[in-house]
Amino acid sequence: MNQQHAPVFEGLLHYRKQQAFSFHVPGHKDGLIFPRQATAFFKKLLELDATEVAGLDDLYHPSDILREGEALLSNYYRTAASYFLVNGSTVGNLIMVMAACDRGDRIFVQRDCHGSIIHALQIGGLRPVFLAPDIANGLSAGISLALLEKALRHYPDVRSLVLTYPSYYGVAPEIGPLIAEAHRAGLTVLVDEAHGAHFSLGAPVPPDALTLGADLVVQSAHKMLPAMTMGAYLHINSARVSRERVEAVRQIFQTSSPSYPIMASLDLARWYLANLNEADQAAIFAARDRFVGRLRELPAVRVVDPQPGRFRLDPFKIILESSCAASGFELQRRLIGRGIYPELADPDRVLLALGLSAAIDYKRAFALIRDALIGLPPLNRRRGSATFPFPPYTAALHPYAVFAKRGRQEVPIEAAEGKVAAEHVVPYPPGIPAILRGERVTGPQIAAVGQWRHAGGLFGNARANRGRMMIYNGS
Amino acid sequence: MNQQHAPVFEGLLHYRKQQAFSFHVPGHKDGLIFPRQATAFFKKLLELDATEVAGLDDLYHPSDILREGEALLSNYYRTAASYFLVNGSTVGNLIMVMAACDRGDRIFVQRDCHGSIIHALQIGGLRPVFLAPDIANGLSAGISLALLEKALRHYPDVRSLVLTYPSYYGVAPEIGPLIAEAHRAGLTVLVDEAHGAHFSLGAPVPPDALTLGADLVVQSAHKMLPAMTMGAYLHINSARVSRERVEAVRQIFQTSSPSYPIMASLDLARWYLANLNEADQAAIFAARDRFVGRLRELPAVRVVDPQPGRFRLDPFKIILESSCAASGFELQRRLIGRGIYPELADPDRVLLALGLSAAIDYKRAFALIRDALIGLPPLNRRRGSATFPFPPYTAALHPYAVFAKRGRQEVPIEAAEGKVAAEHVVPYPPGIPAILRGERVTGPQIAAVGQWRHAGGLFGNARANRGRMMIYNGS
Repeated sequence: MNQQHAPVFEGLLHYRKQQAFSFHVPGHKDGLIFPRQATAFFKKLLELDATEVAGLDDLYHPSDILREGEALLSNYYRTAASYFLVNGSTVGNLIMVMAACDRGDRIFVQRDCHGSIIHALQIGGLRPVFLAPDIANGLSAGISLALLEKALRHYPDVRSLVLTYPSYYGVAPEIGPLIAEAHRAGLTVLVDEAHGAHFSLGAPVPPDALTLGADLVVQSAHKMLPAMTMGAYLHINSARVSRERVEAVRQIFQTSSPSYPIMASLDLARWYLANLNEADQAAIFAARDRFVGRLRELPAVRVVDPQPGRFRLDPFKIILESSCAASGFELQRRLIGRGIYPELADPDRVLLALGLSAAIDYKRAFALIRDALIGLPPLNRRRGSATFPFPPYTAALHPYAVFAKRGRQEVPIEAAEGKVAAEHVVPYPPGIPAILRGERVTGPQIAAVGQWRHAGGLFGNARANRGRMMIYNGS
Repeated sequence: MNQQHAPVFEGLLHYRKQQAFSFHVPGHKDGLIFPRQATAFFKKLLELDATEVAGLDDLYHPSDILREGEALLSNYYRTAASYFLVNGSTVGNLIMVMAACDRGDRIFVQRDCHGSIIHALQIGGLRPVFLAPDIANGLSAGISLALLEKALRHYPDVRSLVLTYPSYYGVAPEIGPLIAEAHRAGLTVLVDEAHGAHFSLGAPVPPDALTLGADLVVQSAHKMLPAMTMGAYLHINSARVSRERVEAVRQIFQTSSPSYPIMASLDLARWYLANLNEADQAAIFAARDRFVGRLRELPAVRVVDPQPGRFRLDPFKIILESSCAASGFELQRRLIGRGIYPELADPDRVLLALGLSAAIDYKRAFALIRDALIGLPPLNRRRGSATFPFPPYTAALHPYAVFAKRGRQEVPIEAAEGKVAAEHVVPYPPGIPAILRGERVTGPQIAAVGQWRHAGGLFGNARANRGRMMIYNGS
C-alpha cells in the first residue's frame, strides 16, 4: 500500500472545496460562527471539523476514506485489523477487555495498570486476579515469568492476561516470554501500549507488543506521535479475537459523532511515522543523544539508564532522578518556573517526554534546565525510591457486587489498615491506583501513600488529598 | 457570576505564554511536530491542544479553570451541577443511565431513542420497557400521557424514564405533563436533549427540558451551538440524582486525557449563548424568517409547520417535505450537487439545520437551493409518510442474557417476521433503531424497513444495506 497518502486528511480537503453551505451540524458552520476572541486559534481547524456527511464515510461502517485510513494503519503496523479511536487509550482499554471477556470470566491483570482497566473489570463484571510487578531501581519493571506461572497453577480457569507495556516512565521489560507462556495456557493477551505507539521504529527503541505476539494492543497516538489529544489506535493481531465483537464494543463506548480533526490527525500521525526515513531517524537520535549527554553533566540529577537483562528504556523518555536535596516535585516546580514543563514528577524523579523530531531546540532547552537546577543543596541521605508496594497477587477485588450494597464511611488513610477500600486511592499523575476499591488495605500501602503525600504528591480525588479515604462498613 | 469570562480558553492562552518547552505529551509539542501538508489547518489550534499539566486543572477533579468553566455553565443553565463532556451526547446518555439505575432495574424508554441509550441498557443490565411515540404528520411526536399512565399501571416497579426531546427533526412535544406524572410515581426522568442545547434562549424556541423539570439532561453543544464536534453538556437538575455517582461514571466512560480544544470550545459556546443580546437574537430570527419565507415559495417542497397543541418545532430546524416526484434522498443529492449539505434526508423529506447567527448568507444559499430544485416533475401520488411503526409498549428486550448464549443466523429481512432480532436494524441517519436486538419482528416493521431501503435510505450496517439481518436460532 502507498504509505505516502493520508486519505482522511485529503478527503476533508476535498469536502471543504465541495461544500458551499453547511445546513447540518456542527453549529459553528465550518468556523463561520464562533466567538471572535478565539477565531485566530480555531478557525482554520474548524473548516475540517465536519460531521459524517456524504463523502466523508462513517467510522463504524467505513467504506471510503476512513476504511482506507484504517487499512493503511493496519498495513504499517502489520496487523490483522487496526482501528482509529477518538476517546483515548481509555476507550481502547474498555474495548479490549469487553471484547475479549465474558461476564464472570477470570482475568489476570498487571497490578500497576491504568485506571481504565480497573473500570473495564468493574463494568464487565469480571473476576480479576492482580499480579504485582517486580521493582527495579524503584521503578515498576513488569511481572515476572515465575509469578505468571505460579498464578496459572492457582487459577487454571483464567481466560486472559492484561499487561502494561511500556510503563509511563518508558520502562520496557521482557514481555515476550510472558506472552508465549500465556498463549501456551490458552489465554488471550491484551497489552496497554499507550506509551509505545512509536515502538514500531525498532532499535534503539524497544520491540513493540505486536511483534512480541500480543493479541490485542492499544496505543495512544497522541502521547508520542504527532496526533491530537484523545487520538488512539486499537490493533487486532490474532484470530483469538473476534473483529465483529471489537467493532460492536467500539461503537458502544465512543461517540456517534467522532471528531474529524482527531481522525485526520491519527491518519497524519501514521503518515508521519511511516515516512520517517533513515536520515530523519538518525538526526532525531543524534539530537536526543546530545541532549541527554548534556543532562548527564548536571550535578542535581542522575539520568536513569536501562538495566540489560531486566528492562530496556524508551530512549524518548528521560528519567531524571534527583541527586540533590530537592524532591522530584520541587525539581518540577523549578523547571516550570523557567518554562520547561515535564511529563510528571514523583518524590524522587522528574520525567521528560521528548518528541520524534530533530527540530526541537534542545540547546536552548538545556540552558533553561541548567539554570533551573543550579545551586541546589547536595543530598544528605539516601533517596527512598518511592514505589507502591503491592501484594504478589490478589483476587480480593471480586466480587464487586458483594461490596456494592454495603454502607461506607470516611476514615483517615492511616486508620484503614486491614479494612476493605470503598474507593480507589490514585496518585495522579501517573494515575495508577495505589489502593484499589475492594482491596484489603495493607500497612506498606498506607506508608507509601503517606510518603507520596508528604513529598507533595497529589491524588486523583479531593478526599485522598486531605489524607482520607472511604472504607466499607463491617469490613 | 460574570458570564463574559471564558476561563478555560483564557487559561489556555495564559499557559501558552508560560511554556517555553513541552517535555510532556502530546507528541506534537504545541504544533511544532506535525506533517507539513497539514500545518496550515492544525498549527494554531495545536498551540492549545495541551494536556493536564500544572495550571490547567483536571476535568475529573476540577479546582481551577475547569471548575470555573463548569460553574459558569451551571449558572447559565440554572442547574444544580453541570459538566463538560468530550465524548459526545453518546457518553452523556451512558452516564445518565448508569448513574441513575442499578443492575436489574426496570426502566421506561421512549422507543425512538438514540442508539447510545440502547447500549446503556445493555451494559447496565437493565430491564427496559419501550414506549412507542405518537406519530403526527409522519413525524415522531413523543409518547402520550395516556400511554405513560397505562405503562405505570402495568409496571409499578419501574424506577426511571428516558425521553428524547426534541427529536432529530426538531419536533418538541409537550413533555412537561409526562415529567410531572413520572415524578408523582417516584421515577427519575432522564432527557436526551442532544438537539436542544439552544432551547435556553426561550420563545420562539420551545421550552427546555431543565425548565420542564427533568432530573438529568444531556445536550450536544456541537450540534446547534458553536462548539467542536464531540463537545456536550451534562446537567443535574434535582436532588434525585447523586452528584458523586454521576462524576464517578463520567470518569469511567471518558478518556483520562480530555481534549482542551474541545473543552475550551464548550466554554466558548456557553459564552456565546450567554452573551447573545436581544438585538443579536432579533437579527438571527429575522434572517431565519426571511429565509424560510423564501423557501415557502418553492413548488418542489413544503415547509413543515408546528401543530399547536400537538407539538412545537425548533425554528432552527427546517423540515422540507417533498411535494414533487423526487424522494427526500433525491432532493438531498441535488442540493449537494450545488454545494448545499443538508442535515439528513428520509424518503419524504430533507432537513436543514440553521445556525445561531445572522452572518449566514441565506440569500446566496436560497439561490443555490432554488436552482437545485428547479424543474422537478409534480407528484402524481400521495407521499407515504415514512415512519417506523413500533408496538405501543414492549418489554421484549429483556433479558439480554437469555438471548446472548443462543446461536444466530442470517436471513433476508422479509423472512424475519415473528423471529427475535439478533442485531439492531438502524436507518442512518438519524440512527434510531427500526428493529431492536431482542425484539420480535413485526410485519409493519419489515414493510417500513423495505420502504426505507427502496427509497434509497441507508442503514448503519452493511448487512441491512444488503436487505439481510441476523435472527436468533429457535426464536
